[in-house]
Amino acid sequence: MISDSTAMPTFDYSLPNLTRDDCLQLDQADPLSSCRERFLLPEGLIYLDGMSLGPLPKRSASSLRNVTERQWGEGLIRSWNTADWIDAPIRVGAKLAPLLGAEPDELIVADSTSVNLFKLLIAALRVCPERKVILTTDDNFPTNVHVADGVQQLLPDVSLRVVPADQIDSAIAEDVAVVAMSHVDYKTARINDAERITRQAHRQGALVLFDLSHSAGAVPVELNAWQADLAVGCGYKYLNGGPGAPAYLFVARRHQSPFRQPITGWMGHAEPFQFEVEYRPAEGIRRALTGTPPILSLAGLEAALEVWWGVELAMIRKKSRALGSLFVRLVEQWASTPELSLGSPSDPEHRGGHLSFHHPEGYAVMQALIARGIIGDFRAPDQMRFGLAPLYLRFVDVWDAAAALAEIVNERSWDQPQFKRREKVT
Amino acid sequence: MISDSTAMPTFDYSLPNLTRDDCLQLDQADPLSSCRERFLLPEGLIYLDGMSLGPLPKRSASSLRNVTERQWGEGLIRSWNTADWIDAPIRVGAKLAPLLGAEPDELIVADSTSVNLFKLLIAALRVCPERKVILTTDDNFPTNVHVADGVQQLLPDVSLRVVPADQIDSAIAEDVAVVAMSHVDYKTARINDAERITRQAHRQGALVLFDLSHSAGAVPVELNAWQADLAVGCGYKYLNGGPGAPAYLFVARRHQSPFRQPITGWMGHAEPFQFEVEYRPAEGIRRALTGTPPILSLAGLEAALEVWWGVELAMIRKKSRALGSLFVRLVEQWASTPELSLGSPSDPEHRGGHLSFHHPEGYAVMQALIARGIIGDFRAPDQMRFGLAPLYLRFVDVWDAAAALAEIVNERSWDQPQFKRREKVT
Repeated sequence: MISDSTAMPTFDYSLPNLTRDDCLQLDQADPLSSCRERFLLPEGLIYLDGMSLGPLPKRSASSLRNVTERQWGEGLIRSWNTADWIDAPIRVGAKLAPLLGAEPDELIVADSTSVNLFKLLIAALRVCPERKVILTTDDNFPTNVHVADGVQQLLPDVSLRVVPADQIDSAIAEDVAVVAMSHVDYKTARINDAERITRQAHRQGALVLFDLSHSAGAVPVELNAWQADLAVGCGYKYLNGGPGAPAYLFVARRHQSPFRQPITGWMGHAEPFQFEVEYRPAEGIRRALTGTPPILSLAGLEAALEVWWGVELAMIRKKSRALGSLFVRLVEQWASTPELSLGSPSDPEHRGGHLSFHHPEGYAVMQALIARGIIGDFRAPDQMRFGLAPLYLRFVDVWDAAAALAEIVNERSWDQPQFKRREKVT
Repeated sequence: MISDSTAMPTFDYSLPNLTRDDCLQLDQADPLSSCRERFLLPEGLIYLDGMSLGPLPKRSASSLRNVTERQWGEGLIRSWNTADWIDAPIRVGAKLAPLLGAEPDELIVADSTSVNLFKLLIAALRVCPERKVILTTDDNFPTNVHVADGVQQLLPDVSLRVVPADQIDSAIAEDVAVVAMSHVDYKTARINDAERITRQAHRQGALVLFDLSHSAGAVPVELNAWQADLAVGCGYKYLNGGPGAPAYLFVARRHQSPFRQPITGWMGHAEPFQFEVEYRPAEGIRRALTGTPPILSLAGLEAALEVWWGVELAMIRKKSRALGSLFVRLVEQWASTPELSLGSPSDPEHRGGHLSFHHPEGYAVMQALIARGIIGDFRAPDQMRFGLAPLYLRFVDVWDAAAALAEIVNERSWDQPQFKRREKVT
């Protein structure tokens, strides 16, 4: 049922006489509607921040109790074997693979996105030592640029080249070792054409490294169909793995044998429990591991991947586009101030799982929305982001959120002291 | 009461006529005995593996439920502010500081021990760029040597020098940038004289970097009294932070301002939520951060630190030595096979929180102990380790464990197929 992507009715969002009841009907007909039951969502809240922190899956809650109280509390040290903690980074990576178009032995879950990016950038630079340039875009998520800059600081003959996103193709020169890009832009949700960029990079002899943080679980990711070389991403956004969930790291099979990462800890050793002084990398993707895995955080993510059971990704994309188109259309219809403008691509084909709107008082507008129980987030200087996660959001949620947003900007009800800027995180 | 280190009766462990009842009496008089109630320990088990994975503190169990179900489930993204997730690495570091003789602003909790070691080794090499040698000992925990080797592979002008532990003083030459050592040896529990090594290193113009994984919570650690420069350690051993709990990282205040670590992610940025392309390191220890912190795993460790409330560390050390001396004395008295020998220093002054015994069939002996509900661990090729954590172990546990060990080796009851070697982890 869930996997039947023909089951959702075709709906003309341009109909001028669309009603809230139409949205309720859409929800009734939605083959993904039962997925909402897989989450523990607070009553009365419309949660549009899944691209920052996904909500708590019921299975994660029960798994975390089990891992804490039974595996740690009762199993103690034995659970490294009996609960197979030791293989958790590999096992969870394998479970993630279908969402990313990868093979199970091409992924591990470990460390943070930044640490994984550091490992992969240096591994990429080692593939063709005569190539010395890391190429990225100036709209990349800042930590990605910072990490690449850190590599440049560390290795004097390496340099980082940062170009505007629309110049990426022509910037892939013969000295480029690796093109490191976000697949989906964290602010605008613009989808970069990963397949084209990969083709262009390979034509120039460079590798590609994609950050999938804002794509995994929201848009189709086909690492092997793209012929991507390397990828990283975080577990806590559309993957709903929990706050600061471990990140993942992809190395295409063809690169795994010569793969050499710089942070060579015991978990990447061929035989970590032989306690050899000499480092011998494990076979395959395991050599990308470093330290002891954070089992509790991994357990949250592992259980969260079960919410995807039986869900066809094409269905996710279809509903995601429908939710986004509806939101844009309603806001444009209802909001009467030119101060509010869409920051995301208007063509849903080029847009990922969230929407971005500019407003000069975006921070205060978002605070006013939050005060009404509608939670998105804000990115300086002026962008509000609304995540439209198809697993747990309803069409009627989009209707209500768009109505609230329009009312707040039309009536300037954001203009109150309690909504003005304080430090806002993630 | 707990903090009154004079309250424990002086006891002559050399008395030949010591009885099990004497142990029960010791437990009754033990001012630390009430701390056992702070843990969820399985019935009927004697847990001597706290130097691998500490047991579950009751507060950690309840905190993990709260952080999962209320903070993540209900608070959602808001908990980065309302539950102060964003400062967790700093806050938990500050709570750990008293156990390590450090100031609250000299520690963060983040990443794994291996990743932290990598960061600090490179930061240390940047302090005196003309010094190019990392010095360590051949009995250091293997991941430490592997990570240092990884740094050597990455930076062609840097070299790693590995010497026997008893030659460390004379090996600190003028080209040494940093002396990286374990404070307590992971196999034998031998305590290295951190203060002397620091003095010797400083005399030669080198920095010291201690791995405290097997000392924190077991033996007195006085980072600032030693004048130590840098330190790392893991959260899941005597700190009871849970499987794969985040590690910690110490940078003495005097080194924090010029401190430059290589994995420059957004959490170490001066203003991570301004999303600047340029990396500007945060003030103080925060610049040692990299990626988004694993909040669930951090929560386990944070709550676990509460078991130390009101506990005087001198009392821990006193009981730890008493437990160790009793165990050694009973085993030596009862075990009648020369195959079993003490692998730890015989002088409790030079011994940390665990005991190591050699036995050619150590793996099988340990399996036979585990089958009786007495859990220690095994380190290839022939060492059994017994952790004697004063917070939750009783004198009578030591009596029973020593009796079982002696019986197993005397009667060769380890010599059964089900106890023979399979892969054993951690």
